Amino acid sequence: MQLGLSVSDSDVSSFTPLVVLELADDTKAEAITWLLNRIRDKQQNGGAELLVNQLLFPAQDDQKPNPNVFVVGSTLQRLLNGAEDVGLFKEFQDGTMRGFTYANRESFKDFNGDGEGFLSDAECQYIIKHELDTLRAKNEEHVPGYPKLKLYPGKSVVRRLQSKGVLIQYFPLHNKEDLKRLSFSWYKKFKLSLQPLDDIRHYFGEGLALYFGFLEYFTFALVPMALIGIPYYLFDWEDYDKYVLFAVFNLVWSTVFLEVWKRCSATLAYGWGTLSRKKAFEEPRAGFHGALGFNPVTGREEPVYPSSKRQLRIYLVSVPFVLLCLYLSFYVMMVYFDMEFWAINIYNENPDIATSILLFVPSIIYAVVIEIMNLLYRFAAEFLTDWENHRLESSFQNHLVLKVLVFNFVNCFASLFYIAFVMQDMVLLRQSLATLLITSQILNQVMEAFLPYWLQRRRNKKVHKRMRRLMGDKELPLLGQVQLETEMNTYLGTFDDYLEQFLLFGYVSLFSCVYPLAAVLVVLNNITEVYSDAFKMCHVFKRPFSEPAMNIGVWQLAFETMSIIAVVTNCALIGLSPQVKAYFPESDTQLILIVVAIEHVLLAFKFILAFVIPDVPKHIQVNLAKLEFDSLEALKKRKHMLQSAQADLIMRGKNSFPQKTKDMFGIKY
Amino acid sequence: MQLGLSVSDSDVSSFTPLVVLELADDTKAEAITWLLNRIRDKQQNGGAELLVNQLLFPAQDDQKPNPNVFVVGSTLQRLLNGAEDVGLFKEFQDGTMRGFTYANRESFKDFNGDGEGFLSDAECQYIIKHELDTLRAKNEEHVPGYPKLKLYPGKSVVRRLQSKGVLIQYFPLHNKEDLKRLSFSWYKKFKLSLQPLDDIRHYFGEGLALYFGFLEYFTFALVPMALIGIPYYLFDWEDYDKYVLFAVFNLVWSTVFLEVWKRCSATLAYGWGTLSRKKAFEEPRAGFHGALGFNPVTGREEPVYPSSKRQLRIYLVSVPFVLLCLYLSFYVMMVYFDMEFWAINIYNENPDIATSILLFVPSIIYAVVIEIMNLLYRFAAEFLTDWENHRLESSFQNHLVLKVLVFNFVNCFASLFYIAFVMQDMVLLRQSLATLLITSQILNQVMEAFLPYWLQRRRNKKVHKRMRRLMGDKELPLLGQVQLETEMNTYLGTFDDYLEQFLLFGYVSLFSCVYPLAAVLVVLNNITEVYSDAFKMCHVFKRPFSEPAMNIGVWQLAFETMSIIAVVTNCALIGLSPQVKAYFPESDTQLILIVVAIEHVLLAFKFILAFVIPDVPKHIQVNLAKLEFDSLEALKKRKHMLQSAQADLIMRGKNSFPQKTKDMFGIKY
Repeated sequence: MQLGLSVSDSDVSSFTPLVVLELADDTKAEAITWLLNRIRDKQQNGGAELLVNQLLFPAQDDQKPNPNVFVVGSTLQRLLNGAEDVGLFKEFQDGTMRGFTYANRESFKDFNGDGEGFLSDAECQYIIKHELDTLRAKNEEHVPGYPKLKLYPGKSVVRRLQSKGVLIQYFPLHNKEDLKRLSFSWYKKFKLSLQPLDDIRHYFGEGLALYFGFLEYFTFALVPMALIGIPYYLFDWEDYDKYVLFAVFNLVWSTVFLEVWKRCSATLAYGWGTLSRKKAFEEPRAGFHGALGFNPVTGREEPVYPSSKRQLRIYLVSVPFVLLCLYLSFYVMMVYFDMEFWAINIYNENPDIATSILLFVPSIIYAVVIEIMNLLYRFAAEFLTDWENHRLESSFQNHLVLKVLVFNFVNCFASLFYIAFVMQDMVLLRQSLATLLITSQILNQVMEAFLPYWLQRRRNKKVHKRMRRLMGDKELPLLGQVQLETEMNTYLGTFDDYLEQFLLFGYVSLFSCVYPLAAVLVVLNNITEVYSDAFKMCHVFKRPFSEPAMNIGVWQLAFETMSIIAVVTNCALIGLSPQVKAYFPESDTQLILIVVAIEHVLLAFKFILAFVIPDVPKHIQVNLAKLEFDSLEALKKRKHMLQSAQADLIMRGKNSFPQKTKDMFGIKY
Repeated sequence: MQLGLSVSDSDVSSFTPLVVLELADDTKAEAITWLLNRIRDKQQNGGAELLVNQLLFPAQDDQKPNPNVFVVGSTLQRLLNGAEDVGLFKEFQDGTMRGFTYANRESFKDFNGDGEGFLSDAECQYIIKHELDTLRAKNEEHVPGYPKLKLYPGKSVVRRLQSKGVLIQYFPLHNKEDLKRLSFSWYKKFKLSLQPLDDIRHYFGEGLALYFGFLEYFTFALVPMALIGIPYYLFDWEDYDKYVLFAVFNLVWSTVFLEVWKRCSATLAYGWGTLSRKKAFEEPRAGFHGALGFNPVTGREEPVYPSSKRQLRIYLVSVPFVLLCLYLSFYVMMVYFDMEFWAINIYNENPDIATSILLFVPSIIYAVVIEIMNLLYRFAAEFLTDWENHRLESSFQNHLVLKVLVFNFVNCFASLFYIAFVMQDMVLLRQSLATLLITSQILNQVMEAFLPYWLQRRRNKKVHKRMRRLMGDKELPLLGQVQLETEMNTYLGTFDDYLEQFLLFGYVSLFSCVYPLAAVLVVLNNITEVYSDAFKMCHVFKRPFSEPAMNIGVWQLAFETMSIIAVVTNCALIGLSPQVKAYFPESDTQLILIVVAIEHVLLAFKFILAFVIPDVPKHIQVNLAKLEFDSLEALKKRKHMLQSAQADLIMRGKNSFPQKTKDMFGIKY
């Protein structure tokens, strides 16, 4: 709760600043006054009851500072009440996780005195974000000073300001001391150890901590595969026949891997109190627009966009566009094969060192082109999905993920499938896979580690220069920090990080039997990935708002789909191997039938396994059941007490229980 | 609520009797007194607060009547409170379904005056059953008079008495007038019309109504298939090549069929108020036993049976037993094939009418043997599953269903798979399928329609004789009815009925392309099935307690698994058809690869379809979301009221809100 920076700035803000709010520098004064009043107003008047102060930056010679930057904080009491509003789960005295209520605060573990230090920084910031987001218009018809910025009762004020560009951004502030401690235990010490997931969750929230948990789990799960892969690679380099055993291992591994992860994820989420937390009612996205109508669920007036129109946009524009992109991707692939043949021909005509290096050039070019195409497509997909005008953020995300996944899958793996099953050239497959994997890893590392490091150094210099100039008149670390963080890039969520892991998982689970070093390369990549991701979270991007997550969401489904494709692919690769073919010298038919039969059995086994292994470990199931049982018992007890109280009053001959009190408490009996 | 029989028996019971309770005729008097007291005792003393009266049957010359038969009823007020306890959902004023609360009773549709007629008979009986089941031991160490019948605080009294044979049975009484009306609209009129599902649900509860809904839906879904099947059968009798089109149709049909049913089922369950109803905390089964320990969830003392012991019993006894039975089933199948060849040989040597009839004899014998084996196995499976000592009824049911399904599937379909894919003899397949289907249908109709009808006639005569004898001294329709219904068989649930439909679905979806008349036969069977099932529910069995059900449960999964197997089977049958083979004259390999590829695409398509089609129709989703939103809003409102009330009190300078009142109402703030 105690931000290190608040000490010396008592003249700037009288409270611990948690969130920064930046309005456009030409915002009208009446709008600002109105917004600040609404934020400060009491809850019973529909306000957010938060503390807010303006930050005034001293003018600098090179640029005029934005005058409309504010810091938001809160009293402890308000935060604890807010924790109940957002449905936070915390550890109870008996070790189970329970929904926090202000009334029972004393029964929660780690609640001492007035509750100082009970909520983590990230939780406080999340609560403030929630309170700001649910600050709703009352009877205002429009934002004061902006007749065109229409409002209607119940509309989120912040979303409206944001969608119209009046509110540029709002983001949580870093806590320098905590950050220092976290980054030390996370990536600054050079001994091998597990990541401090609980600290990451404390500082960045559950969504990000789950990503790093998954990254770690995935990397560890790859280690046995990498260990088996090294001898395979070293001793069987030219013996393409021996990969049957590896394919079988691959197949079992990819199935078990995801089932066990579900349980790990449930354990983590339970410990972090997000497993049984109820989802809040989802608000429309900031960018959602439509004619004013009535929401069938809430009955409130809000923009409505007919779902038929959205379907038309999806099926008449988005789907054809995606198909066109897939066609383009296939076209590029065929060009790559032409280049490949051309290089092979040159090598065959004149085999020397120069031409043998030339052999790898088409693959490298192709890998780079793939990365560029993925990047470009990503922008197009975001634009299209935004244009589809989804009402909810979750629906937007699902459509975006689907679009991007399909394209990336085809773009990255189509050439490998083509080589494996149409050309049936295992040497070329091995070579292509290696080149693709290594090139894309190098590109990723540059984009994710070196580029950020370089940007960071550049920014550091700039800030030092500025700080030196400011030092002249006054010491204002808060102003400096806010200015620095305002200019940092915004972290756009775990999407790209998961996508990268998804593609790596694809390379390993689909084709590593022909190139056993794949697992080794991915392990190496992921170790540096942890460091570069940690670094970028701590120093390159603005601190993101904590995102409560109970699992890795749609990515679990994506990885499971990939593991099903992996079963089919590995079975097919086994069927193609000369080793297996040798057993059926006279007829291909029998071989194919047996491979297909085995594949079906494996798929059935996989589904049964997924069905039989409980997604949540036993002891957590018991805890969850206990929670539910307790709440049922409490409900029953309360009802009985009400009944006996009522009976008592009737017995005394006067059913005079004051009606007003009953109404006031909303008691029903 | 008004049972037709209560009018003339005012001397026997002063209330409407709803449930009959039969104790063993040698039950000790003190146990009876104790039990009746507990049933009649007030709720705040831990009683059930129900009305109960003894029925005294006049002695008859041929047998001594059981003196320990009781009828249980309840006051209206108690039933309405009980409706809240069991979490009944009823239609609200605004047309949505909401959890009934006594406080809000006036806001529910059809609630007039004191609530007479608001609850259906079946609901009242279900509430009484629930109250009896949750009648718990207090400090009694054992049942009075039975030192060996141990009790512990919280143990369900009725379950303990039942498991030790003191309580023979308890069952709801039929309502003669309602039954007459229901049976007339259901099966006594001979015009084609939909079943009165709402009336069935009113009288028998949601579980049974869903079964009849499914039966009707399945039959209707089969009609297009039957309509296509008839011309196929008539014009292509000897042309086995033409079944490709039919197989493709089959494949699409079996996928769409189940997806649409999910939506129908959700619509029915929503209208009946069971879709969003929360499951009550499940009690241990009556037969569950173990050493006394502590339940980790409730913390109560209760029998505990280590799950490792159960696993041992399952894997060391049950699984080998099932495998042995499967082996036996295969053995019987091979014997059948021997018989089949023997019959064919005789026919070939001397082809005349007698030997051509002989051709069908092995199939008929095999069909009869299959039915007998299924029946025997059913008993063994029930015994074994009981011996596995599952704690919960749901877990018991799941293990039983799994055991029975696997065996029945293999027993019924193994020979057909063998003929289709090992022998590849489509003529024999068609003949076997027809014989199996027709024989098992005839057997089923005899067992389900003619046998009950005959039993019913026999019982009617007996009752008339007895009634005539009783008529002599007094008119006691209640006594007569209770005596008659006590002797009726108990309906053991929808298990066998669903199982029969499951196997019929298998015949149709797996193999109907080679015998297109299968769908026609199943439609005909199901039409008579509706009548015989309706008749048996109304007149052959005791009225069952209503069973709230939100879907067809584990059977949905069973049917879906069957439809996946159907895709694979139909693809394989297509691959085997001479028509398709003709396209690939030179190589089988290419044909197989294409068939496998198509099969994979179809399976993928099936999963995507299941994922894309929402299980709950849009308008019901909106209603459910509305409900959730309203309860969230109510909670928020209540919290704010509490807060402002508190603030109010603090303002007045005296936080004197009486602590006792707060505790009494369990209010938390």
